[in-house]
Amino acid sequence: MANERTAGLSLIYRLELQNSSNTFGKVAQIIGEEGGDIIGVDVVHVDKDHSIRDVNVNVFDRRHGKVIRERLEEAEGIHVVNLSDRTMLMHLGGKIEIRSKIPVRNRDELARVYTPHVATICEAIHEDPSKAFKLTIKKNTVAVVSDGTAVLGLGDIGPYAAMPVMEGKAMLFKQFAGVDAFPICLDTKDTEAIIAHIKAIAPAFGGINLEDISSPRCFEIEARLKEELDIPVFHDDQHGTAVVLLAGLMNACKLVGKQLEDLKVVVTGIGAAGIACTKMLLLAGVRNIMGVDRMGVISRNHEYENPMWQWYAEHTNPNNLEGTLSDVIKGADVFIGVSGPGVLTVEHLQSMAQDPIVFAMANPNPEIDPDVAAPYVRVMATGRSDYPNQINNLLCFPSIFKGALDCRASDINEEMKLAASHAIASTVSDEELSEHYIIPSVFNKKVVQAVRLAVIEAAYRTGVARRRYRDYSDKQ
Amino acid sequence: MANERTAGLSLIYRLELQNSSNTFGKVAQIIGEEGGDIIGVDVVHVDKDHSIRDVNVNVFDRRHGKVIRERLEEAEGIHVVNLSDRTMLMHLGGKIEIRSKIPVRNRDELARVYTPHVATICEAIHEDPSKAFKLTIKKNTVAVVSDGTAVLGLGDIGPYAAMPVMEGKAMLFKQFAGVDAFPICLDTKDTEAIIAHIKAIAPAFGGINLEDISSPRCFEIEARLKEELDIPVFHDDQHGTAVVLLAGLMNACKLVGKQLEDLKVVVTGIGAAGIACTKMLLLAGVRNIMGVDRMGVISRNHEYENPMWQWYAEHTNPNNLEGTLSDVIKGADVFIGVSGPGVLTVEHLQSMAQDPIVFAMANPNPEIDPDVAAPYVRVMATGRSDYPNQINNLLCFPSIFKGALDCRASDINEEMKLAASHAIASTVSDEELSEHYIIPSVFNKKVVQAVRLAVIEAAYRTGVARRRYRDYSDKQ
Repeated sequence: MANERTAGLSLIYRLELQNSSNTFGKVAQIIGEEGGDIIGVDVVHVDKDHSIRDVNVNVFDRRHGKVIRERLEEAEGIHVVNLSDRTMLMHLGGKIEIRSKIPVRNRDELARVYTPHVATICEAIHEDPSKAFKLTIKKNTVAVVSDGTAVLGLGDIGPYAAMPVMEGKAMLFKQFAGVDAFPICLDTKDTEAIIAHIKAIAPAFGGINLEDISSPRCFEIEARLKEELDIPVFHDDQHGTAVVLLAGLMNACKLVGKQLEDLKVVVTGIGAAGIACTKMLLLAGVRNIMGVDRMGVISRNHEYENPMWQWYAEHTNPNNLEGTLSDVIKGADVFIGVSGPGVLTVEHLQSMAQDPIVFAMANPNPEIDPDVAAPYVRVMATGRSDYPNQINNLLCFPSIFKGALDCRASDINEEMKLAASHAIASTVSDEELSEHYIIPSVFNKKVVQAVRLAVIEAAYRTGVARRRYRDYSDKQ
Repeated sequence: MANERTAGLSLIYRLELQNSSNTFGKVAQIIGEEGGDIIGVDVVHVDKDHSIRDVNVNVFDRRHGKVIRERLEEAEGIHVVNLSDRTMLMHLGGKIEIRSKIPVRNRDELARVYTPHVATICEAIHEDPSKAFKLTIKKNTVAVVSDGTAVLGLGDIGPYAAMPVMEGKAMLFKQFAGVDAFPICLDTKDTEAIIAHIKAIAPAFGGINLEDISSPRCFEIEARLKEELDIPVFHDDQHGTAVVLLAGLMNACKLVGKQLEDLKVVVTGIGAAGIACTKMLLLAGVRNIMGVDRMGVISRNHEYENPMWQWYAEHTNPNNLEGTLSDVIKGADVFIGVSGPGVLTVEHLQSMAQDPIVFAMANPNPEIDPDVAAPYVRVMATGRSDYPNQINNLLCFPSIFKGALDCRASDINEEMKLAASHAIASTVSDEELSEHYIIPSVFNKKVVQAVRLAVIEAAYRTGVARRRYRDYSDKQ
């Protein structure tokens, strides 16, 4: 991650300059010597001894900007207070806000939304707690919860640094499906404490979206919360990816004329996402899946300390094969990578069955360069937005939660996830379906409503919807 | 509470009616017999056996509406699905929402607020956690936290039923001072658990507003969190009332020409609010305060199990008097009631010093009826909005937090609260000051900015402001 390279990046250096010596002249000299281009200068503050100025500079890239910063820091009388760019400016003060849905302009309005009349609403919920789903934000609000231990590709950066991602997620919930979402970043890594905290704050929420919690704690946390809370709990890193992957695989199979039941599938990277993808494929009817991690193919010939690998050995690899990726990729119909760059080679692709289907989803760099792979695959999908067929969980998490909230589902179960995969796949028509279009764009407006309705239908079918049935098709 | 009496209240009965018999005729007959007035009927849903209809009925008051409900419930073939009114309709789906401050309309915007570019923001905060105050919602966001144990006059109604009050509070934070506030209702009453939960969720917030937590747990929770968190923690039920009371008392003293130092003050109801008010008065220079609760005047002649009463005995009642309210009210300049109706009598008022000042703040019914008290008092204030001089903590909590957030205060300390009292008092000019106007209206727009600036000034003066000083007067 963070491999942003922007030619002509525009940076803002906030500098505190001593008035005594010709410090601004020095600033201009240093920036000029290093090849930066001063676009403009704004004075922020001046006092007897110092001035603070924002110096706008065009640089080649982020590294170039850092070199200039270091040179400035070394100079006498110059202190770099801050270095920001357009992305940083967009983040000032955070990306979301809380708004009233009703104005409070006078005594009458104040009396209705607050004391004394709000007491009648409190009493109504006290008498019948299920009314919280109707008379409070619980109706449409999700907590986006992380402990900051597995954020993007950055790893364990903690709850403070995780906030911008969770705020971004909250924006996407609202923008894509009209769901209110609030970021909760927990200042603990203890599994039991995390479970207790989430249970304690649950009254305000209609659902819990777990995010960027490291494996294997994420499994225990999700499983326990699903058991102990009466609202849906969904670890997006696992299930979001799995739902969208399955949608893509369904359409890829349709394209090449193969059935899920007959596929030979190889998965590399048996972590949280790899296991979730495998479970989803098994649920959808795929029978022959083999998982490969650092020690090779997972089989029943070994005992694994990691309980999830033990589970994997017992539920996959029907022929109990052993070996490496090179061994099991031979004759495979589908490759699914949630591992890292360089895992997959042209030789591997050449040894696959006819019409190879490759999901190389490692981020930001796929298991094989898509351009290198192109001549040897029939269908290729990645996690990247700059190639066709992006597997992006943004295609499902807002609308799955919207469906679950609208029918007051107590759970997001396997059937609801499967329904979401089918709905996503179905938004690509037979006429549209091609090697370069097996999965819709995240900006495709048809997707949200299709997924929402499919999820609601599955919730009623499986008995987890708690709202009296109604026609959900007219409103979103 | 909930003593709402509205002549001509309009209610909506949602009824499920069996199609078989003439059920709607029965509905009309019952409502007519009971004196209700059917305004309109809307069909919500019809199937083979049932129909659901919303019947709009004008009734005399809430009790009348319940009588009709009970008669309808008794009739065969009629089921009352729901009974709602205008207040309830305003609460449908909750009163607040989460909004994006920036749109996400295309790939470029998505890449900046979410992956991949958000990673640069995460890294900046990971390197310097104090940047969370700048680059996340922590800058302007407060958690409104309750366990639902002391909600309005309703008592321990639990976290679900407390939500409408906390949502209302969040609305007021935004509407009155532009602070983003989110309601957190905790599903536990355990002091240690509450402390742990609030500490765990703190990374997202710049302040914690505790609300409607019962005594004595509220003292321990607030004290511990103030000690263990680096952001302001403020129990509004205690300090909000105390700040506004002191503002009113300052102006009342100015009016009658007395000094705080010379006052003899009697407080009834030595719970959380009574103790907070007493501490505030001591801080402001009042020297002679006596507290009265069920067992009489609190003095050093007794040992109290309640540690707060023990504290009270040691810090008030300088002459160590004993007796009842009737004994100590003699010659008192000021009465402060945070107890209940009927505590104060005309005889009590007649025995007070010249120009009696009475704060009868019990809600919804004051310690003495203001109309009864009028001939015997010089200045009277209550907690009610339908009499002059309402002591309403809405006058301070939004702006105190706004000031604390704007200068990144680590605490809301005594000096900041005192500054807030002075600021509120100062918004009533000498020309305006009268028996009926010692405290500004909650809708007075001057108050917020005055309190905010006074709080910021006090925060810098006492060293708890963590932001570099700037001119705060231009923006709110």
